[in-house]
Amino acid sequence: MRISHFLLATLKENPADAEVISHQLMLRAGMVRRLAAGLYTWLPLGLRVLRKVENIVRDEMDKSGAQEILMPAVQPAELWQESGRWDQYGPELLRFKDRHDREFCYGPTHEEIITNLIRNEIRSYKQLPINLYQIQTKFRDEIRPRFGIMRGREFLMKDSYSFHLEQSSLDETYELMYKTYSNIFNRLGLKFRAVLADNGNIGGSRSHEFHVLAESGEDAIAYSTTGDYAANVEVFEDGVKAGDPSPDGKSVLDIARGIEVGHIFQLGDKYAKAMGASVLDEDGKSATLIMGCYGIGVSRLVAATIEQNHDKNGIIWPESIAPFSVALLPMNMHKSQRVREAAEDLYNKLQAVGVDVLFDDRKERPGVMFANAELIGIPHRIVIGERGLDKSEVEYKGRLDEKSQNISIDRIIDFIIG
Amino acid sequence: MRISHFLLATLKENPADAEVISHQLMLRAGMVRRLAAGLYTWLPLGLRVLRKVENIVRDEMDKSGAQEILMPAVQPAELWQESGRWDQYGPELLRFKDRHDREFCYGPTHEEIITNLIRNEIRSYKQLPINLYQIQTKFRDEIRPRFGIMRGREFLMKDSYSFHLEQSSLDETYELMYKTYSNIFNRLGLKFRAVLADNGNIGGSRSHEFHVLAESGEDAIAYSTTGDYAANVEVFEDGVKAGDPSPDGKSVLDIARGIEVGHIFQLGDKYAKAMGASVLDEDGKSATLIMGCYGIGVSRLVAATIEQNHDKNGIIWPESIAPFSVALLPMNMHKSQRVREAAEDLYNKLQAVGVDVLFDDRKERPGVMFANAELIGIPHRIVIGERGLDKSEVEYKGRLDEKSQNISIDRIIDFIIG
Repeated sequence: MRISHFLLATLKENPADAEVISHQLMLRAGMVRRLAAGLYTWLPLGLRVLRKVENIVRDEMDKSGAQEILMPAVQPAELWQESGRWDQYGPELLRFKDRHDREFCYGPTHEEIITNLIRNEIRSYKQLPINLYQIQTKFRDEIRPRFGIMRGREFLMKDSYSFHLEQSSLDETYELMYKTYSNIFNRLGLKFRAVLADNGNIGGSRSHEFHVLAESGEDAIAYSTTGDYAANVEVFEDGVKAGDPSPDGKSVLDIARGIEVGHIFQLGDKYAKAMGASVLDEDGKSATLIMGCYGIGVSRLVAATIEQNHDKNGIIWPESIAPFSVALLPMNMHKSQRVREAAEDLYNKLQAVGVDVLFDDRKERPGVMFANAELIGIPHRIVIGERGLDKSEVEYKGRLDEKSQNISIDRIIDFIIG
Repeated sequence: MRISHFLLATLKENPADAEVISHQLMLRAGMVRRLAAGLYTWLPLGLRVLRKVENIVRDEMDKSGAQEILMPAVQPAELWQESGRWDQYGPELLRFKDRHDREFCYGPTHEEIITNLIRNEIRSYKQLPINLYQIQTKFRDEIRPRFGIMRGREFLMKDSYSFHLEQSSLDETYELMYKTYSNIFNRLGLKFRAVLADNGNIGGSRSHEFHVLAESGEDAIAYSTTGDYAANVEVFEDGVKAGDPSPDGKSVLDIARGIEVGHIFQLGDKYAKAMGASVLDEDGKSATLIMGCYGIGVSRLVAATIEQNHDKNGIIWPESIAPFSVALLPMNMHKSQRVREAAEDLYNKLQAVGVDVLFDDRKERPGVMFANAELIGIPHRIVIGERGLDKSEVEYKGRLDEKSQNISIDRIIDFIIG
């Protein structure tokens, strides 16, 4: 992509109303713009990241055998009345009437809709277990939306729902989702913990929250320094501090802060019972289903990634979700035919091997180019200038490298992709 | 995909309330299910088609140089009041108040939001022209939703908006979108016409509707049998019939029916003027922008494709958007080890070369397998049975072929992908 053809909307100043670093950097890098409280437009740079996150989530969900569907965002009140949640839910449920005065809501979650689908479509135990997911825009009318997309009102969510006859089958899918979520966050290049939301009795397998570790996180987490154990500090009734023994008996605990980006949950028969979702079992008898639900905050993940990965110059994207892999910065290209030709040539060659390149073809000073590339967090920077070309070299710097290095122009592509 | 792991939800009977063939077939094939009036859940089979259509639209929009963004679905009333449309729009605009009693709507279109974005982000003529698009779920509160997703209330739309200083620049982008839309509909394998919405004075370049030709279409279109001319019959004040001379002077007219799936439109300065969207021109003077808008009904395209491509047995998908390319049907696999092994082997090999295969591994009668594969419209059918394997052959039939043919099992993959 040539910057001259790209809506790069970087800001020099820190926006006054942005409290957290991800919000500041997403505005400064030109990833999003605020439309109204808790409502944001994703600009081209931000959307490239959001789509990459979305695609990794989709890919791992597909690999797990879950099937993608898409339910309406607008949901009829009747189903929420069946489950009892129409009255239980507070004002964060956005409710409205259509032109015929029928009541609806803009769904923050889809338990009722999926249970309704399953009770209509699934007749036999032979069709179970089934795990259906969607990636969809949802709405939660937060009383005080803040931190940009971290706690917005409209957000992109992956939600899935599995249905079973036997607890052992639900346990299996729950375990599979635990692994799938771990794969997703690993592919995103994130440091995370799967945190017990309760104090872990009966194996503590009924609910895990996935937290991205970041100093700015809202929750404090106690985690085993060598094992998998992690729990919200609030579950320790007598308090907990770093160095305490881990309840798994394997090591000691450390304390960190986390941002919740995923949640897996065994719901049991709550919805199926209230809404009459049952199938015929092997003996031909009607049996109520049990259910698990599994959510990932896709848009929130973008912000959480930034909270974990940034420095004073800007964002540091993990390779897998960087909006561009390479920033190609020619020095004084508009004065040097030789630099222009070398830059155009390298741009074409990198694209030909499938590398996402942002080609800074603006008439900008080198300092502006460097600052922009660091601010928006591109993993690899290639600088082409007259002096380097004299030696058939370009200057390379990784986003986290302290110093740049000179690399032969013939070797740079292998260097990047290898 | 193995059917045993796939939510195939075909129906034997024609649903009573489905009036048009696409609605009937989408329900019978298990592509969608109704949640409430004008609200549909996309099941895995339907969503595969929807995503393929979406990806073709995205790919061609990207090739045109348009940039993808994502605006909120929920829009503040203030911007619609600025443009004057808050009062002009009827009850098909779904309006509601948030918990703080502020007014919003669920956007059926985004002219106000994009104009607001542009007036804030674009400062100089050097940043123009710009063409931004999104692919997004929208809502129109139809008084009488019908025909399934053809005229639903919640629908998937590609909408784009271009901004310019000069009419000549708007004309250029308009022409580019005309070509891009033609590329999209060609890649979808559709017979279509670009139809003048008005009577074509001043070159008639200010608005074109793109219609998929289908007998069930709502609009009657007069089109030149050899040239590009096409117009809604309503623009001929004195009536028009097949055989009349074409206004382009090149040939005679024929009459067909069409389903509107796209619309390109030059809006001029309507929104920019009302909302104060201007930039500094080359002379440093403030100049009001002009604007084009370009829509494609992505979910509607799925239904329109079926209206154009079906027979008495079901859907006939164009290759580019078929949910699966190949139906692999083993005969009595659960009794024959040899058939099972051959089917599993071919399934793996087809997948390895990137072919989307639906592998019917159910214990079903051949007649049910054949009927399902035809109903859901899979382009290629491969049958594996004992008799064929005696001669190392499989039976192949294209969805539109009258007869099947025997093909060597060693050659079938090249036959499919070549």
